[in-house]
Formats: sequence, C-alpha cells, structure tokens
Amino acid sequence: MTNVHNFNSGPSILPREVYEEASNAILNFNNTGLSILEIGHRTPLFEAVLHEAIALVKELMQLNDSYEVLFLHGGASTQFFQVPMNLLDASATAAYLDCGTWGSKAIREAKHFGQVHLLGSSKDKNYTYIPRGWRVPDHAAYCHITSNNTIEGTQQHEWPETDVPLVSDMSSDILSRQLDFNRFGLIYAGAQKNIGAAGVNLVVVQRDLLGRVERHIPTMLDYRQHIANNSMLNTPPVFAVYVCMLTLRWLKKLGGIAAIEPVNQAKAALLYDTLDRLPLFTPTVAREDRSLMNVVWVMEEPALEAEFLALCKAEGMVGIRGHRSVGGFRASLYNALPMSSVEALVQLMEHFAAKRG
Amino acid sequence: MTNVHNFNSGPSILPREVYEEASNAILNFNNTGLSILEIGHRTPLFEAVLHEAIALVKELMQLNDSYEVLFLHGGASTQFFQVPMNLLDASATAAYLDCGTWGSKAIREAKHFGQVHLLGSSKDKNYTYIPRGWRVPDHAAYCHITSNNTIEGTQQHEWPETDVPLVSDMSSDILSRQLDFNRFGLIYAGAQKNIGAAGVNLVVVQRDLLGRVERHIPTMLDYRQHIANNSMLNTPPVFAVYVCMLTLRWLKKLGGIAAIEPVNQAKAALLYDTLDRLPLFTPTVAREDRSLMNVVWVMEEPALEAEFLALCKAEGMVGIRGHRSVGGFRASLYNALPMSSVEALVQLMEHFAAKRG
Repeated sequence: MTNVHNFNSGPSILPREVYEEASNAILNFNNTGLSILEIGHRTPLFEAVLHEAIALVKELMQLNDSYEVLFLHGGASTQFFQVPMNLLDASATAAYLDCGTWGSKAIREAKHFGQVHLLGSSKDKNYTYIPRGWRVPDHAAYCHITSNNTIEGTQQHEWPETDVPLVSDMSSDILSRQLDFNRFGLIYAGAQKNIGAAGVNLVVVQRDLLGRVERHIPTMLDYRQHIANNSMLNTPPVFAVYVCMLTLRWLKKLGGIAAIEPVNQAKAALLYDTLDRLPLFTPTVAREDRSLMNVVWVMEEPALEAEFLALCKAEGMVGIRGHRSVGGFRASLYNALPMSSVEALVQLMEHFAAKRG
Repeated sequence: MTNVHNFNSGPSILPREVYEEASNAILNFNNTGLSILEIGHRTPLFEAVLHEAIALVKELMQLNDSYEVLFLHGGASTQFFQVPMNLLDASATAAYLDCGTWGSKAIREAKHFGQVHLLGSSKDKNYTYIPRGWRVPDHAAYCHITSNNTIEGTQQHEWPETDVPLVSDMSSDILSRQLDFNRFGLIYAGAQKNIGAAGVNLVVVQRDLLGRVERHIPTMLDYRQHIANNSMLNTPPVFAVYVCMLTLRWLKKLGGIAAIEPVNQAKAALLYDTLDRLPLFTPTVAREDRSLMNVVWVMEEPALEAEFLALCKAEGMVGIRGHRSVGGFRASLYNALPMSSVEALVQLMEHFAAKRG
C-alpha cells in the first residue's frame, strides 16, 4: 500500500528513518550480531542508549541543572496517581485545572491522596475551551495543568504567573512548541506521540520538589529511587527507550523545537483555515484555544460524515475518526506528520465540499 | 559477527523468527503500509494481537475459566507492591518464602501493606538452596514463592499442599516446565525472559481473589480495572505485547511447554554434568535445588576466572559473567537458547580444563 496518511492520535506516526533504524536494530543492533531485544539493560550497549536519550531531552528542552530526566514504565495514566503520591501530603492541597478528559482523570486520582482545589472547569461545554480568570492559591503544593487536550483538541496557550510549582501533563504536545520548560516543577508525557513508541513515560522533575511528603511510597513509584538508580531501578522498557532515543535524535538533527514549531504552526494553520473556509466542516473548539496538535471538527449531517469518512479511508487517511466521546473527526498533526499529509487531507476536503457543499 | 551465543539473564535471547517478524512489522505491519509502532491501540489491528496473546497464554498454561490474563506496564518489581496492594489488608497476613534477591524485595514491599509471615529463608547461605520444612499458616491471605531465582540459580521443584492461594513470581521460568498452573491464585512474570521483550508484565489471576481488600487502589494499579478494560485501561506497551504474541506463537508451534521442557532439561543436564565432572568449575547451588534456567558456578582462582571469562568473550559468549552479588559465572538457558549454544560453552570448558585443569 502506498500513500498512507497517518493522523492517529497516539500511538502515532514516527519519522521514517526511525522505523528503518529500529527495524535494523531488531536484527543486528550496532553491529553486535545481537538484537536490541536481547541485549542486557545493564550493559554499556544499553546504557549508551539511555544516557543519550536523557541528554537529548535535556538539550531539546534546554533544562537547567535542577532537573532530573526519567524514563519510567507506564503511560501518563500512571502519573495521574504517581504525581500526588510523591508530591501531595494527605492534609495538603493541589490546584488542578479541569480542562479535558485526561485532566479530569488526574483530578479523580489526586483526590485519594490529598485535597484538590479546582481552578476552573470547561466541562459545561464538553471541554471545548480553556477556562480562564482563575488564580493559583499560594498555599497549593502544586498546580496541575494538561498542556494539550488530545481528545477535545484544545491547548493551553497561556501559563499562570505563580511561585507554586507547575505540574503539566504534556503527553500530546511535548517537543512541539517552544516553552520555558524551566518554569515547571514536573512535566510528564506518555512517549507515544512526539517522543517515541508506546510503553514508556517521560518524567522531568525538579529535584528539590521530592522528599517532602510523609507517606510511604512503594519503591517502584518513588521518583527518588528512580533518580538514585538512573532510570534503571528495574529492567526498563529497553526497546521503547531506544525508539525515543532515535526520535529525539531525529528532532535534534532537524534543528530541535525551534525548527519544528513553525512547521507545526503551518500544518495547523492550513487545516484550520480550510475548516473555517468550507461551511461543510465545523471546528468544535474556541478559536483562541485551538490545539496545534489535534484538530477536531464535525459536520452537520451524519450521512455526510459517514460519506466523508469513507472517502478518507479510501484515500489512505488513517486515524481520522473523532474520539468516541466527541464524535466527528480528529486529525492529529504530531511532529513526524509531514505537511504533505495535511495537504492531501485539505485537498480531499476541497474536493468533497465542491461536490457536496 | 557470527556465532554469538547469548546467555543473558534477561532481557535475553528470543527466537530468530521473532526478530525477523518484528523487524518486518516495524516497516510494514500485516501489509497495512503502517509500522506496528504507529497503529492505534484501539483498532482491530492491535486488538487482534492482544487477544491472540491472551488466548495463547491461556492455551499454553492450560488455564481454566476462573483466570484472567493481563498484560500490564512495568516489570515484576511493580508486582512486588501491586500484589499486596490488591490482595493484602493492613491487618491480614501473607506468607512469604525468602529464597532469593527478588523474593526478599517482594517481602520488603509487602510489609508496607500488611503483615508478613516468613515461611523460611536461605539468606544464611547466600540463597544457594531452597528452604524446606515449613508449613503455610491456614489464616494467610496468600503464600508468595519465587519459582526460580534468576540471580542465585535455584528453582522451586516442590510446591506446598495448601488451601491458601499460591502467588508466584515466575519471571525467569514461566513456560519452561510443566506445572499445574490452576493450583495458583496469581502468577506474575516480567516478559523479558521466556515470554517476549522487556517493557510488559504478564499477570494471571483468579478472578475471585480480587475485591477483598479495604484500601483504595489507584485506578492503574487495580487489577479489576484492567480486567474490566481487557488490558486496555490506558495505552498498552503495544510493541512489547506484539513481541510476546510472536514468541508465544513460536512456542505453540513447537508443541508448547510439553515440547520445550525436555529440551530445557537436556540443556541444563549437559551443563551441570560438565560442571560436576570438571574440578576447575564449581556449581554454587544445592544439587536438588538447581535451576534449569540459570546455571551458576565459580572457579577457585580469580586469575583463572578472568582468563576463562576472556576466552568466553573471544568465542562470542555473551552474558556469561555472574551477577555482581554472586560473582563467578551464570549461563541462562531460556526457551529460545539453542542446545548448540550450550554445546559450544561445554566444549570451551573442556578445552579450558584440558589446558589449565
């Protein structure tokens, strides 16, 4: 099959050269005669992979020396409880913004560990906008914000001025836009969008936030234990870390976040402009809160939706159907998605609008 | 490089055809034109992989209908705390056998959740034997035994007669020998030895053991949540599960556990016979407790050890150095290691003994 355009929301498209290198490494890793799947994790072979991945994260995110970079088992959902378990005492309060499906799940887990102060919520309108006009209470242990809402297609474009440590789930937009990452106390992200393959979690944490809670933390859930053991407390997800390293290498070679950001902006602009221009398609999200990574829209008539979806499938467009909780369509435009895929989608929209509009 | 013999203790050797299929799937999975790394986990494509992996586990282990098979994030170390979190109330008691490094870590984690009754310990002799002469107390919530001690090279060859649910960490010998798996309440195993690639955990659990504890369990740590969501509570480690499925397929095609067990016995017998015959090499483990998976030995003189290790390396023997806590040598003879690798090692030993013995 040729001309597949992969708009999957995650796991999602990765650079072609990452597939090629990973495929080779499964047969013969670094000319060792061994598969990447059979090398010991406590060998210089894998240590070099892990160290390079960590160094690339620090470099691409321009992190200062107060941060630790960890590759942990599990996805972001594990961090929903691991963050409060490590940072929130039972009597303390954390501030959370309820701006989407993932944030609301994070809130539910946090409530079992301490008090949650709700900064705001956009649940009243199915999370189609980012709540504004709130202030982080000074006494909060941390302030948790989902930076991009994969399902609903909104993105945080403004960050609060506060001395309270910012914690952010950046699963679906990390490494896609320039941010001062040194403003954050803790950042976490499932790897399977912009970092690499599913099965590993990136956690970036400021060292001095840790060790402040009273409760006992199981060894495998204690960030300090992972720091002390350089992300090798137990057997890490070797291959998933390797794919992250390859993807991070690719991003660096491209010029890093500063180079990919304008490409991401151009891809999103092309698609949103088309949606705004063609009356057949209706973006669901408040204009000022639109995500550059996940573009969500609906069509007025279910019959037309079904027809357009079928057309997309016939043209090799994968992962274009909206999340079951939102309906309609969603195109995810992660770092590795080429502009040519967005152009193909836009052409299809124009074609369809000319025929049915 | 040719003739690499991989005796790694895990991650470890997998069948050649698994590498080949996995390598192809990274470029083009099932002729979809997509990489296995970029397919959505909630698509029929991946669901078929997961369902086949689960069905193969049930078939190979001949599990009855009271069991659930889960593929979870993390390695066995995660299960050290997740088992007591799900099965042990704060006031209840679990019985543990302290027969090696991993079991002792499991005990340490369990003590934070409830009471631990120590059945026996072989710590007095560096875990070189399996403690006997103990009885499981009737009131125990469960009885935890490590079935094979990867580091020390011992293996549980007898299992207690008890009505208390048996819980076993089978990370390093699962699927290698016939056992009545239906005698166990819960079995867990990191995948990276006999099941597949690092980054996923197999948990087999009897449904009616769950839901008996009082404490709140975070969603991602609650087995019942994973059961209710068919191991798809969040994005699973897609590729690691895929490699498990391929490896399980290979084992089934070979004839299952009944077919691989005599091969494993023959490999271990050849190596232990050689160790017993050549005075230069000294097995460290009590004869009746020897592991068929991990064979551990030392040599009397450090200079000879260094010389033999260098010779092994020169001959393409990988992963032969003993664990840092034991010293000497360790050869891991997992399912996918061919007899020819054991023969090559034995020949090298004969050769070395003739020269230096």
